[in-house]
Formats: sequence, C-alpha cells, structure tokens
Amino acid sequence: MRREKIILGIDPGTRCTGYGIISLHSTSMKPLDFGAIRPSPKATMGKRYLVIFNAIETLIESYKPEIIAVESQFVHKNVASAMKLGMARAMVILAAERRDIPLFEYTPKKAKLAVTGSGAASKEQVQKMVQLLLSLPELPYPEDAADALALALCHAHTIR
Amino acid sequence: MRREKIILGIDPGTRCTGYGIISLHSTSMKPLDFGAIRPSPKATMGKRYLVIFNAIETLIESYKPEIIAVESQFVHKNVASAMKLGMARAMVILAAERRDIPLFEYTPKKAKLAVTGSGAASKEQVQKMVQLLLSLPELPYPEDAADALALALCHAHTIR
Repeated sequence: MRREKIILGIDPGTRCTGYGIISLHSTSMKPLDFGAIRPSPKATMGKRYLVIFNAIETLIESYKPEIIAVESQFVHKNVASAMKLGMARAMVILAAERRDIPLFEYTPKKAKLAVTGSGAASKEQVQKMVQLLLSLPELPYPEDAADALALALCHAHTIR
Repeated sequence: MRREKIILGIDPGTRCTGYGIISLHSTSMKPLDFGAIRPSPKATMGKRYLVIFNAIETLIESYKPEIIAVESQFVHKNVASAMKLGMARAMVILAAERRDIPLFEYTPKKAKLAVTGSGAASKEQVQKMVQLLLSLPELPYPEDAADALALALCHAHTIR
C-alpha cells in the first residue's frame, strides 16, 4: 500500500495561477514543488487558458497527485472578472477530470483558517505559516504559490 | 489552393451544446453535420465539461474546420448560470486554441440577423431559414443545433 499521498493545490487566475505540491505521509508532510503559471499579459485570453491548462497537465504528469485542491470561487460583483476567473478554474477542473483525479474546493477563508487558525489572516501570515508547516528555508513566493500550498495543506488537515 | 472552407459553429451550454458544421465554397455552401452534445444530467459539472471538451475535440479531428464560430456570452443576471455557461464556453475556447484554429464570437442577435434578416427572430424562424439556406430535407433539430448552424452561416456571411 502506498503510504504517501500527493496533493496538488491550485489558486487559479488568468494573470497568475499559483500551484503547490505537497507529499503527505502518516506523520509528516513535505513540499515537492511550488510556483506560479504566468501567461504573457499580451496573449489572448484563449492562449492564456491554453498555457494554464498545459502547465497543469505537466504538473499532473510530473507529480501524479492523488488529489487536487482548488480555491472555490467568490461571487464577484464584477461579472467580467468572475467569468475570466471561472474559465481559469475550468482549466483546472478539466485537467483533473481528464485524469480522473478527485477535486476538492476550499474557500480562501477555510484555507487561511487551516494554516493560521484565522480565516481573516493576512497574505503575510499565510506565507509565514506555510513556511513553518513545510519547513521551507524562506517565505514561499509569489503569494499565489503560498496560497496554493495553503490549499494543499488545508486538504491535508481535512483528511487527517 | 483549397477552395472550400469548413466552419464549425458552436452554441455552448452545460445541458446541451449545439454544433453545426458547414462547408463553404465560392458559390455555394453545404451542411456537413449538426447535432447536440448532451452530457448526462446526473454527471458532475466536471464530468460534463470533459464530455463537452472531448466531443468538440472529436468534431475538430473529424471535420478539420478552419474556423470556429461560437456564441458570445450575455451578461446574465444570474451569476451562477453565467459561470456554468462560461465554463462550457471555456471548453470550446481551449479546444480551438489547442489546434490553433481561429475563433470568432457572435451574439445571438447577430446570428439571427445574418440568417433571417431580423435580430429578434424566433427560434422557429431561425430553424426555417437555416433549413432553407442549407437545403436541408427537414427543420434542423434540436434548436441548439440550428443555432450553431446559424453561427456558422453568420460567419460565412461575414467573410463573404
């Protein structure tokens, strides 16, 4: 029986999609990779979605996560922004579905709560706690990557 | 030089995504295929997006369209519905982008205007005019397929 569980956290966005991959063992967890997908701001929206989709497929192929944890969407007042974000999220949903990987959604508040103990924690607090929990040598950058790691940690916390 | 141009029209929706493919020649046009993609209503939304995405990829592989014409999105008052529709549209955008096929967006009003001469035409009027323009033996069903054919015809009208 495989003892470790690999979780891919994703914080989607058309400008910057953060990702963070952790490996969860019975008594410990460690970071495998984190970073951000940044399509060229000059690219068409279609091209940006393709860049995000391809990057997520590559992450899945490389790390073979058993679970994907994605940030659930706010209902924005700005419908146009909500649509763009929804389409970036759709790339994550499709990539997960294509490989039959279970997808779990967490609100930003729940992810913050899981890693800092407060649903109203600042970006910096999240970064600091993610650094501490994963014994990272420095603060995880960019913030979207820290948020993605927090989503993965939130899922780990939930299943433990 | 290839004389014909193949246009794939798509009217996206999570319940029913209509498609219509026409072949455009210098003096004539003919229908190649039309119909609807209907994911199981019992399926998760993720699964539905995958069904839509796979079906569109299959249509692209089968007919090798040079152009995809897709219905542009209204700004719905219901944000949840708009999000679902946006995600279905994202499947079309991604499928087009993956094959580097130019995508054109048309409002329902513009498509109606192109085939019936009126932007306020009824669904039945659209079906009748699509039947007439493509010399179909009967009215195209379902309505979403007729709308998809109307989008392809609208593009043909625009480039002529």
